[in-house]
Amino acid sequence: MRTGVWLIGARGSVAVTSMVGALAIRAGLTGPAGCVLETPALRDRIRPGIGDLVFGGHDITTVPLDKKAAQLAEAGVVPAALARAVQGELLALDQHVRPLPAAATQAETAQAIGADLHSFRRHHSLDRVVVVNVSSTEPLPPPHPAHAHLDALGPALTGPDPVLPPSSLAAYAALLAGCPYVDFTPSTGARMPALDALARAQGLPYAGHDGKTGETLVKSVLAPMFAQRNLTVRTWSGVNLLGGGDGANLARPGANAAKAASKQRVLSETLGYAPQGETRIDYLEDLGDFKTAWDLVTFEGFLGTGMRMEFTWHGCDSALAAPLILDLTRLTAAAHHAGRTGPLTELAFFFKDPLGEVPHGLADQWRSLCDLVTALTPGTTP
Amino acid sequence: MRTGVWLIGARGSVAVTSMVGALAIRAGLTGPAGCVLETPALRDRIRPGIGDLVFGGHDITTVPLDKKAAQLAEAGVVPAALARAVQGELLALDQHVRPLPAAATQAETAQAIGADLHSFRRHHSLDRVVVVNVSSTEPLPPPHPAHAHLDALGPALTGPDPVLPPSSLAAYAALLAGCPYVDFTPSTGARMPALDALARAQGLPYAGHDGKTGETLVKSVLAPMFAQRNLTVRTWSGVNLLGGGDGANLARPGANAAKAASKQRVLSETLGYAPQGETRIDYLEDLGDFKTAWDLVTFEGFLGTGMRMEFTWHGCDSALAAPLILDLTRLTAAAHHAGRTGPLTELAFFFKDPLGEVPHGLADQWRSLCDLVTALTPGTTP
Amino acid sequence: MRTGVWLIGARGSVAVTSMVGALAIRAGLTGPAGCVLETPALRDRIRPGIGDLVFGGHDITTVPLDKKAAQLAEAGVVPAALARAVQGELLALDQHVRPLPAAATQAETAQAIGADLHSFRRHHSLDRVVVVNVSSTEPLPPPHPAHAHLDALGPALTGPDPVLPPSSLAAYAALLAGCPYVDFTPSTGARMPALDALARAQGLPYAGHDGKTGETLVKSVLAPMFAQRNLTVRTWSGVNLLGGGDGANLARPGANAAKAASKQRVLSETLGYAPQGETRIDYLEDLGDFKTAWDLVTFEGFLGTGMRMEFTWHGCDSALAAPLILDLTRLTAAAHHAGRTGPLTELAFFFKDPLGEVPHGLADQWRSLCDLVTALTPGTTP
Amino acid sequence: MRTGVWLIGARGSVAVTSMVGALAIRAGLTGPAGCVLETPALRDRIRPGIGDLVFGGHDITTVPLDKKAAQLAEAGVVPAALARAVQGELLALDQHVRPLPAAATQAETAQAIGADLHSFRRHHSLDRVVVVNVSSTEPLPPPHPAHAHLDALGPALTGPDPVLPPSSLAAYAALLAGCPYVDFTPSTGARMPALDALARAQGLPYAGHDGKTGETLVKSVLAPMFAQRNLTVRTWSGVNLLGGGDGANLARPGANAAKAASKQRVLSETLGYAPQGETRIDYLEDLGDFKTAWDLVTFEGFLGTGMRMEFTWHGCDSALAAPLILDLTRLTAAAHHAGRTGPLTELAFFFKDPLGEVPHGLADQWRSLCDLVTALTPGTTP
Ligand SMILES: NC(=O)c1ccc[n+]([C@@H]2O[C@H](COP(=O)([O-])OP(=O)(O)OC[C@H]3O[C@@H](n4cnc5c(N)ncnc54)[C@H](O)[C@@H]3O)[C@@H](O)[C@H]2O)c1
Ligand SMILES: NC(=O)c1ccc[n+]([C@@H]2O[C@H](COP(=O)([O-])OP(=O)(O)OC[C@H]3O[C@@H](n4cnc5c(N)ncnc54)[C@H](O)[C@@H]3O)[C@@H](O)[C@H]2O)c1
Ligand SMILES: NC(=O)c1ccc[n+]([C@@H]2O[C@H](COP(=O)([O-])OP(=O)(O)OC[C@H]3O[C@@H](n4cnc5c(N)ncnc54)[C@H](O)[C@@H]3O)[C@@H](O)[C@H]2O)c1
Ligand SMILES: NC(=O)c1ccc[n+]([C@@H]2O[C@H](COP(=O)([O-])OP(=O)(O)OC[C@H]3O[C@@H](n4cnc5c(N)ncnc54)[C@H](O)[C@@H]3O)[C@@H](O)[C@H]2O)c1
Ligand code: NA
Ligand code: NA
Repeated sequence: MRTGVWLIGARGSVAVTSMVGALAIRAGLTGPAGCVLETPALRDRIRPGIGDLVFGGHDITTVPLDKKAAQLAEAGVVPAALARAVQGELLALDQHVRPLPAAATQAETAQAIGADLHSFRRHHSLDRVVVVNVSSTEPLPPPHPAHAHLDALGPALTGPDPVLPPSSLAAYAALLAGCPYVDFTPSTGARMPALDALARAQGLPYAGHDGKTGETLVKSVLAPMFAQRNLTVRTWSGVNLLGGGDGANLARPGANAAKAASKQRVLSETLGYAPQGETRIDYLEDLGDFKTAWDLVTFEGFLGTGMRMEFTWHGCDSALAAPLILDLTRLTAAAHHAGRTGPLTELAFFFKDPLGEVPHGLADQWRSLCDLVTALTPGTTP
Repeated sequence: MRTGVWLIGARGSVAVTSMVGALAIRAGLTGPAGCVLETPALRDRIRPGIGDLVFGGHDITTVPLDKKAAQLAEAGVVPAALARAVQGELLALDQHVRPLPAAATQAETAQAIGADLHSFRRHHSLDRVVVVNVSSTEPLPPPHPAHAHLDALGPALTGPDPVLPPSSLAAYAALLAGCPYVDFTPSTGARMPALDALARAQGLPYAGHDGKTGETLVKSVLAPMFAQRNLTVRTWSGVNLLGGGDGANLARPGANAAKAASKQRVLSETLGYAPQGETRIDYLEDLGDFKTAWDLVTFEGFLGTGMRMEFTWHGCDSALAAPLILDLTRLTAAAHHAGRTGPLTELAFFFKDPLGEVPHGLADQWRSLCDLVTALTPGTTP
Repeated sequence: MRTGVWLIGARGSVAVTSMVGALAIRAGLTGPAGCVLETPALRDRIRPGIGDLVFGGHDITTVPLDKKAAQLAEAGVVPAALARAVQGELLALDQHVRPLPAAATQAETAQAIGADLHSFRRHHSLDRVVVVNVSSTEPLPPPHPAHAHLDALGPALTGPDPVLPPSSLAAYAALLAGCPYVDFTPSTGARMPALDALARAQGLPYAGHDGKTGETLVKSVLAPMFAQRNLTVRTWSGVNLLGGGDGANLARPGANAAKAASKQRVLSETLGYAPQGETRIDYLEDLGDFKTAWDLVTFEGFLGTGMRMEFTWHGCDSALAAPLILDLTRLTAAAHHAGRTGPLTELAFFFKDPLGEVPHGLADQWRSLCDLVTALTPGTTP
Repeated sequence: MRTGVWLIGARGSVAVTSMVGALAIRAGLTGPAGCVLETPALRDRIRPGIGDLVFGGHDITTVPLDKKAAQLAEAGVVPAALARAVQGELLALDQHVRPLPAAATQAETAQAIGADLHSFRRHHSLDRVVVVNVSSTEPLPPPHPAHAHLDALGPALTGPDPVLPPSSLAAYAALLAGCPYVDFTPSTGARMPALDALARAQGLPYAGHDGKTGETLVKSVLAPMFAQRNLTVRTWSGVNLLGGGDGANLARPGANAAKAASKQRVLSETLGYAPQGETRIDYLEDLGDFKTAWDLVTFEGFLGTGMRMEFTWHGCDSALAAPLILDLTRLTAAAHHAGRTGPLTELAFFFKDPLGEVPHGLADQWRSLCDLVTALTPGTTP
């Protein structure tokens, strides 16, 4: 079951870390730490395996993959020895990372994207290709009536003005080309009625949004703890200090606001109310790919007694995200194979801003994921 | 369904905080924050309610309850206004807190304890009395052959030498008198084959051990998160700085060791391996009933990248423990009413060192608790 | 040497905490913790003593002092017993806190303020009155040519439009009335050439700006440590979470920006360069007068090795500020007595944004303060 | 002014990091970050310069210097590129690191050590050799009467039983051979009357003890801040989690106790009283050369209001220590050149447990150091 992973933003940190990792794991140079489908509970259940994944993608920069890998090694994101060991294979991959097409109309651009996907599938004789968006977070797009109706969308795209933001155009092109779509970013992606309709019409699943890799992950286990213990959270404030390409981009107010909002949602969803406080994101170039998040929680217990908790999370964002890209591709491919269409709400475990009316506590999301894996495992009765 | 709560250690911080709280809640002066059975998910399910609880107990000190309440108010554990508001009722309760009996043999002491329980039940016309140990943590007792056999235990207790530590003698006396037994401390309590046999012979349930109120609670949600994300925890070290009566006692090496061990167990149980590191407990008189715990976790992600997390927990131990005493009494009484005997393993949610082969992750424990509540709820089909 | 303390903002948290404290210390109910002039090194050197201070002031609210004190007690800023003990004296003080005058022109308002100062001095037969600004932080005022020239200022104030922000008008009125002026806030106060000229013309000293009570205090000892050890600070980021009246006001963007800037200045001044990073101030009503600040410092050592430090400061702002009000009044009165005029640059120890070209490291500021105390101590040869 | 640095423990982390660094700085490959004598305030004052230092030493292991350097690079202590760049020079240095002599009596061992020192000086035509102890911390030695009298010491050393611990034997041998001695460890070294007498008799200076590189450094600026602000420190507790060779050694109870005690001394010396609390040292192999220290400080301000501060220090111990080795050698050599004999108390800035009755606050120590530099600077009038 050879499966293509087509990465939008294929020359970025998350993308290249996931490629280096998949190659190194396949070569037996390292283990699958961080890959959820390789935990004892889920191991050997989902086809395709890591070894069945074939990489390609689009990007707007032309930095070669091996050079990016060397930068990641320099920054401590991937071990220098691994980056060197897979350098040859990365160079081979490089030809499958194409410049993002840009035509006169969005309809034509979508067609060009689709053509790249078809040729990638043909070239590697792949069973299917999953398109995964790991490109820079984009600002919220202006609303457009065609977002709501698939019938209106096609014609609208033939006009001279952009109707869809890049992430949604990628989703549109992917679905049109018969490829499931995963959005690891907070961008809009497939999240509009017209694209949901397209996915269903094409019999394709899609997943998202915004990979959950740090502070929000921790929140998704702590907030249920406070709720189950009937401890009222009065304030929950956080600050995220991060560098790297993602940080630079998030420093732009539009992108930042989208991300910060999706980071507080887990609280109101799991607590049943919104405590005071906000999550800040600050860009500090010097921190590179490592992020430091600090959260303060003040809460009230028996008879109103005030208490507090704080935590500091110091994680390497790309190293946390990359294995999830492998997991998400495998799960989405298996879901497609099993005939699932529409939003894969059981993948909420992976996302800060999951699709559908789903639980936001990690434990419930874990159960939901385990149930999905069971449902997708050939030869088991769910 | 009037239910007695007989507290061993009834003049201590946890005991008096739970009394003040129950009286204040009953009088409508405050809400049931911190009470697990009052979360939206579990509210109005379990009989007895908080208003059905009647307090009494044993202690070895004679500090009046209202004086202890005033000290707790001074220390910021309970609001001064509440302590004053329930002062009269506390004084009334004071006569039901008896000096711990101490006779020539442990058999006679047990009988005297039983007599106090009977007279308490009769005096208040109670449906049942739950005995809850909240007295000072005791050192591990020396082993004795009679711990293993109920047949041997009775005769052994008639000798001049102590055979059981105080917590186990209390459990013995309670079970003999037909009372379920809950141990909120890390002491031995009912945890020996002879007492398990006695509980089953008497048709009584029992529960324990060691209320989970702070650092271990946090561990029980964070450790599963690392496991589910396949992030290898390399080290997990903690330090607990605490004052108060419990702190003073834990500063004694024997008690301390017992507690520290039970605090790391959650890691190996949920991770499947034991990371490097230890949990320290240090006594700082000046901190009073407020405890500060700090934990450092170092972990390894994709391709071996090292990352870290630390948290500080600043909680009021008695305020965290007291509502759980109300919950545990209610649940144990309801389980008794429903005919449950032996260890109540579904109460693992409340304990650092739960009875039985049970999950140590909080989310699984929560589910188990919810299932128990459903099973105990009259008129629902579990 | 009876000295008046005329507080602008006399019904605020800092003001009332300093009044309660001075009364309680005088009555022997508590010690002078937090008062710098009462450390062993400086004790019994400066006249007036705490017992020589007499309070009065202006405010725009009419909340009675004893009610404010009760609120501060409720919030844990002052002990309830002390607030009760000095209630009577506070009520007596209340009549000396007058509504802030507001006339048709700023010249007339200044005259009315001066009249209040004269009548206060006369009423209590005071040797001198020190005016201390502890009112809400105001936004940066628009520039005006009269700020630069004393000659131009008088006439400009007779016009219908405001020329000075409230803090500077208070400084103007104070200096005109022969009173030294201290600004504990980040507002403009006496910081303009025209007012400096007025102070010198009147033979009066003045001091400021912005009391240093928390995060900046810590920075002023840590930054010199990094500098002396030749460790390059790469980033220094902070977040301040605070409630209270001051917090509510600082949440307004204008005031916030002024304060945040003055909080980073200590870094460039002591390190010799400005590391990346910013200081954020967030308002969280629920935190009340207690503030939590968190700072992350990343630095580089030998051969470029990266390291990091973080700290959390959890302080009660009013309790930290109030004793400094007593110190500043005493020092400014003694300086006036000794004939000092113009900016008291030796008081940099107390301020985030000190006047003059002074060291920003706390240790150097401490030495400078000790030298001043020696110079002001009667009968010692400096 | 060519100066030898003879390192006891020359194959350890601190030693090799300082060699790699000195070679790299000399080659212009990196700057002198972390070197106190290279701060703007002290630059170009002290001869010898870094470029004048020549390395040699004793050790009991035979791991080659370049191999140790490679390990340090692997562990992130020194950049891999630098370790490679100086590999050749390290190999050349390797022949000057000799096995620690061990003869039948300590007198003979001392003579053998002295012979190595002489031959090192001759071989390189050095003006002088400074012996610096950076070997593993040793337990407190049993007392011996000869420690108190130089007259008794010589004869005692000719016996079969050891009279001096290794660090003191090294000091004895160094002084006898005319070499100043610096102890960077908490071991006894020259700290006994007999060795002080020997230093004076030989006209030699000596320095120590226990390099101040992390938590204690921070304490030495924070504690004076609390003192100067008259804030009463109630508790100060710390935990140090460290790996590496030093950590492994400190995990042995004897060594640990010595170090922990020297870490709390700064508090009582700067505060004037000893707050509650202790400093713990725990060994966590996995942390390698990076150490994490966490400290909690609770303090009391105006009117008794309780507040708190905590900090986490995450430093690379060897990278913090190595530049100080260069500074200490240079300063001690210059002091020797200037005719100083006996304890160099002005070097307290560098040590956790400084010699003499000296201030323990860093700011005062800094001044003292600056004064010493001025005194040692040729052609300046102190
Ligand atoms: N790393 C994490 O933990 C994490 C978690 C959640 C979400 N994300 C999201 O993942 C995305 C990638 O993060 P990253 O750290 O790899 O960022 P990055 O800046 O390193 O990489 C983004 C890449 O996208 C490319 N790109 C930009 N616009 C594009 C377009 N229109 N089409 C194709 N490529 C385009 C850029 O050239 C760049 O190579 C971001 O949106 C980020 O917010 C990351
Ligand atoms: N507060 C928490 O968060 C928490 C969590 C887990 C376990 N616990 C355990 O709960 C227990 C009570 O804690 P606390 O803070 O109330 O302590 P405490 O010291 O305030 O109270 C203990 C009481 O037990 C009494 N006592 C001692 N020996 C006795 C005996 N043999 N029989 C009867 N009474 C006796 C003491 O006189 C005292 O009044 C401790 O064992 C503690 O370890 C508390
Ligand atoms: N507490 C600290 O640690 C600290 C440190 C540095 C600076 N400050 C500054 O001290 C000031 C007081 O802080 P607070 O916590 O007491 O604030 P607060 O809000 O409790 O008190 C401010 C008082 O000023 C009054 N006021 C407002 N405008 C006025 C005016 N024009 N004239 C007279 N009174 C006026 C208000 O009515 C209020 O009573 C603030 O500017 C704050 O930024 C405080
Ligand atoms: N790194 C710091 O920040 C710091 C701070 C203060 C003190 N120190 C002290 O510096 C010393 C060195 O630290 P490290 O991290 O380099 O330790 P390390 O374990 O890496 O090196 C110690 C070296 O000393 C050698 N050695 C042991 N006994 C010896 C003896 N009798 N004679 C000669 N050599 C001997 C060992 O073989 C080893 O090579 C320790 O005592 C440590 O406590 C270090
Ligand atoms: Na912290
Ligand atoms: Na922290």
